[in-house]
Amino acid sequence: MTQPDRDAALNALKSLIGQRLSTSKSDLDLHGQSESYFPVTPPDVVAYPDNTEEVAQIVSICATHRLPVVGWGTGTSLEGHALAVRGGVVVDFSRMNRVLEVRPEDMDVSVQPGITREALNEELRATGLFFPVDPGANASIGGMAATRASGTTAVRYGTMRDNVLGLEVVLADGRVMRTGTRARKSAAGYDLTALMIGSEGTLGLITELTLRLHGQPEAISAGVCAFSDMGSAVRAVTDVIQMGLPMARIEFVDAATAAAVNAYSGMAFPLKPHLLVEFHGSDSAVAEQAETFGEIVAEHGAEGFDWATRAEDRNKLWTMRHNAYYAILASRKGTRAVVTDICVPISRLAEAVEATQQDIAASAIPGPILGHVGDGNFHAILLVDEANPSEIAEAKALSHRMVERALALGGTATGEHGVGMGKLDYMEAEHGVGWPVMGDIKRALDPLNILNPGKLVPPSN
Amino acid sequence: MTQPDRDAALNALKSLIGQRLSTSKSDLDLHGQSESYFPVTPPDVVAYPDNTEEVAQIVSICATHRLPVVGWGTGTSLEGHALAVRGGVVVDFSRMNRVLEVRPEDMDVSVQPGITREALNEELRATGLFFPVDPGANASIGGMAATRASGTTAVRYGTMRDNVLGLEVVLADGRVMRTGTRARKSAAGYDLTALMIGSEGTLGLITELTLRLHGQPEAISAGVCAFSDMGSAVRAVTDVIQMGLPMARIEFVDAATAAAVNAYSGMAFPLKPHLLVEFHGSDSAVAEQAETFGEIVAEHGAEGFDWATRAEDRNKLWTMRHNAYYAILASRKGTRAVVTDICVPISRLAEAVEATQQDIAASAIPGPILGHVGDGNFHAILLVDEANPSEIAEAKALSHRMVERALALGGTATGEHGVGMGKLDYMEAEHGVGWPVMGDIKRALDPLNILNPGKLVPPSN
Repeated sequence: MTQPDRDAALNALKSLIGQRLSTSKSDLDLHGQSESYFPVTPPDVVAYPDNTEEVAQIVSICATHRLPVVGWGTGTSLEGHALAVRGGVVVDFSRMNRVLEVRPEDMDVSVQPGITREALNEELRATGLFFPVDPGANASIGGMAATRASGTTAVRYGTMRDNVLGLEVVLADGRVMRTGTRARKSAAGYDLTALMIGSEGTLGLITELTLRLHGQPEAISAGVCAFSDMGSAVRAVTDVIQMGLPMARIEFVDAATAAAVNAYSGMAFPLKPHLLVEFHGSDSAVAEQAETFGEIVAEHGAEGFDWATRAEDRNKLWTMRHNAYYAILASRKGTRAVVTDICVPISRLAEAVEATQQDIAASAIPGPILGHVGDGNFHAILLVDEANPSEIAEAKALSHRMVERALALGGTATGEHGVGMGKLDYMEAEHGVGWPVMGDIKRALDPLNILNPGKLVPPSN
Repeated sequence: MTQPDRDAALNALKSLIGQRLSTSKSDLDLHGQSESYFPVTPPDVVAYPDNTEEVAQIVSICATHRLPVVGWGTGTSLEGHALAVRGGVVVDFSRMNRVLEVRPEDMDVSVQPGITREALNEELRATGLFFPVDPGANASIGGMAATRASGTTAVRYGTMRDNVLGLEVVLADGRVMRTGTRARKSAAGYDLTALMIGSEGTLGLITELTLRLHGQPEAISAGVCAFSDMGSAVRAVTDVIQMGLPMARIEFVDAATAAAVNAYSGMAFPLKPHLLVEFHGSDSAVAEQAETFGEIVAEHGAEGFDWATRAEDRNKLWTMRHNAYYAILASRKGTRAVVTDICVPISRLAEAVEATQQDIAASAIPGPILGHVGDGNFHAILLVDEANPSEIAEAKALSHRMVERALALGGTATGEHGVGMGKLDYMEAEHGVGWPVMGDIKRALDPLNILNPGKLVPPSN
């Protein structure tokens, strides 16, 4: 294959976007970082396009000169998705961050990929609508789509898969494709929207999204309670799901996470496993659901049930949950995190969590556990000294056994963080024949392998 | 390309499944029919496999001898999906119709593709769970997945896209691929499940499905009311959706449909547009929702509101709705139907329906309208004398203008019936760049073009 002609490509890019092509060391370093344990990997250049046409031309230039091109939202992904591991151009979407059109009657909105979920919801506030997907980090909507993100509200509102109606995508040859329509459903051919959601920039760069919105709930009630052990908490949630109680969020944190949160946020949670729950609906429905929930968890030994009906108390509760990752990181100075993300059928969740806890307890590194118990998805945050290769090796071995356990239980290596580089080694075990099929699709849509090479598909690509 | 070696293929198939390979004229004719206006197109043979391994071997034989292979469920599709337009083997899944495993704790079930939705729900009855997708016809689950079916309950429970967790698929070279897991969500690579849902047998044959189940509602309430005009009915529904009222079904029939139903089912509906609605939930929630619904539609001039809380009355109501297609067919003797299926953003539904009604009124053929108003999806059933080419031409012209209107309003040519042959001509207009991309995917996964050739993708395939 032709070798990349880096200099020719950079000259062409410079002519296209001038000052918005950056080669400053600080900028390259910033776009070579990730929030996880991967080494810093700066790209050759960072491009800041203003519109779809520029993105299309950037990709065309990269195609002509065989240069890798990698999308960048806010850099909050956990599996090294946005690292330019073969060099090339990082396309930073931070200037493409506008709400293009809100259509309250249709409960949808069109946005550019660089807008963050918090900025979007701020702009939607007056409409009575909101975008519910909440991965914790204030990620960009484009990045959330590219990694098929979900988070605390997926149990009620679904993941990015369920909340994107259509996309505009720049393909590997620079063509601009629009997928989906603004209709609520369609049976018109292959679901290219779903194919792009979770493709991690390996099939195209998302330049516009049409999102499904939801009505802001009339009433919200949130609560927290402690359990003597993890199994009881999980069994309580299983019962609540079986009852059909529509929880908007149902989160689990273990005793180690409670301790980290206490230290970081000045809280005083008992050092036990906790459930955090939230209901959305009418005043009467929310009150009824909270009561039923309280009765069910009490049967499983829940203690100290505390309801937060005031917005201020609720915000405190979820800020605490969202900061749990940072609280855990802060609980051991100078460490990086190997973050795990397995998801299993609900019926196997208790055993998956308990086996993981035992495994971590027998290791030399700390690994608090927290997760989205309503989806069967949880994370162990394995804290490693990045200067200590044996700790990184131990964390990877723990992570490896977690994935093996998840697959044996009928689950997945990654519930919401995606593949990137960190989960590449498990794709064959999880997908079998499906993995080379993903490679076939990649080759069909990106024959030159310029779109985020080294991620997601078999390495031969 | 190598020419199909029909005789060699048939001999190999005969050795494989013996008596379960049929060449009887009646069987071939039966599998050459559709429920719509397409001419009878018998295949060369019909195969009745018993298991996945046999399906894989059938496809391998077809690959070796370049013979087309087309899946068949119950033959209820409306766009000619299962017609072997280039000859070859129809694979009839009627013997692969078992429930493989129900897992009530995880609220999921694994089934073979030949089971019908009614048979599945019959088997689930004692579990307290049900599979909600309801296209009206008692279709096979495999066929419903292949066409991305939906129907009356999609407004609450989603389409097949939302209710299939994973698939087993026989690929074009005979390999068996498993997609998805039993976890509720996953971010592990391309969404091959979603890619297969709605691929209409052009990328693989579905041999097993894992489906998401839902709790049977504690209470159900259904009702029907009349409106003076279609616009009022649609505006009423828009208001109800904006209120966030969780309707389980919300259906629309026009005055012509009401007349056909009266004649066919011995009902006495006023000859006006009607809404049919259903709520699922707790006793108190359903009662509250029904009351709120009644208030909102009354503001839009709804008349003669009639609530059916007894199961018997509800069944009568929905049987009537499900039989509406046959009632309409029976309203003009000796006719076939050209069925349309556009879906538009809710805000544009009233104008789409009204423009369609005017267009049909100005034509020489009848075309009652009914649809899934909560999704923005409706059907005009254009009744044509199949011996009269000018009627078929007029119906196709009406259908063509409906699709043009839908696309101009930001909608789709097909909300739930799929592409098959009937909507092939609109794919380029709807998808633009996306259509050749679908062709690229098809070529990557079925390079010999043996899987349901002549459907869905660009004809060069």
